[in-house]
Amino acid sequence: MEGGDDIRPGETRTELPPDFDAGLYFIGTIRTPWRNRADCPKNPREAGDAVSTIELDPRYANALAGLEAYRHILVLYFMDRARRDLVIQVPRHSGVAQGTFALRSPARPNPIAVSVVELLGVEGTVLTVRGLDCLDGTPLLDLKPYRPAVDSPDR
Amino acid sequence: MEGGDDIRPGETRTELPPDFDAGLYFIGTIRTPWRNRADCPKNPREAGDAVSTIELDPRYANALAGLEAYRHILVLYFMDRARRDLVIQVPRHSGVAQGTFALRSPARPNPIAVSVVELLGVEGTVLTVRGLDCLDGTPLLDLKPYRPAVDSPDR
Repeated sequence: MEGGDDIRPGETRTELPPDFDAGLYFIGTIRTPWRNRADCPKNPREAGDAVSTIELDPRYANALAGLEAYRHILVLYFMDRARRDLVIQVPRHSGVAQGTFALRSPARPNPIAVSVVELLGVEGTVLTVRGLDCLDGTPLLDLKPYRPAVDSPDR
Repeated sequence: MEGGDDIRPGETRTELPPDFDAGLYFIGTIRTPWRNRADCPKNPREAGDAVSTIELDPRYANALAGLEAYRHILVLYFMDRARRDLVIQVPRHSGVAQGTFALRSPARPNPIAVSVVELLGVEGTVLTVRGLDCLDGTPLLDLKPYRPAVDSPDR
């Protein structure tokens, strides 16, 4: 769904480079209660107490060692249905035109989301978390411990 | 530098998939005071008050509109010199073996870093920020507004 003609009045696009500069591995799959975009909460606040699971590709199983010690983790995932060429966007909820980098919209040159979630449990290669708001089936890119000393701006 | 034989005792690697699943655009370049890995601070705390600049590719210039209203932003960048196949790592500073996902080490299947930085100014396509700790020349992947209500775990 890169490109296409479904842009709203006031939105503008850029010409993306002809080639990618680096590659990503999808390292797992996120399972949430939301099967289509219309049902998706607009942000983690709206997601409320919903519990999701993250199924990690078994080839990375050993890389989870020690993560269970953290109450909060960062989850990076790939919003693979978003177009990547919009530079000015008009979000439906605000109707105000803004630059892509001033928004958390999935549509951006590299559609990578960063979510802080509560880690409820780890069993084998399945993590149970609270706080994700993405579509069911979203590809996982990374897991990191959340460290208030560096991840909070008032450090 | 993917693969290679420079792993430490206690570290283990996995077999990465034969192909990438998606592609990244490098959308700009980060300019910091650190020209080689030995000089790099180990985290943003150590970087102290150092000021860095982010040079955005002009094709995305309009996407900055509105970002200047935020005091803190998230910067995503690609740690392109890191190997991607380690699942257990022994960080030099701790000497303790841990899973890759329990560490903030650059070495990970998708070497994407997330930093919260203070935005000092935007002039054309150049941003001045405080709080980055990466190598000079690091490729930029994304900029997002930092929103305490969703990015802080005590929301």
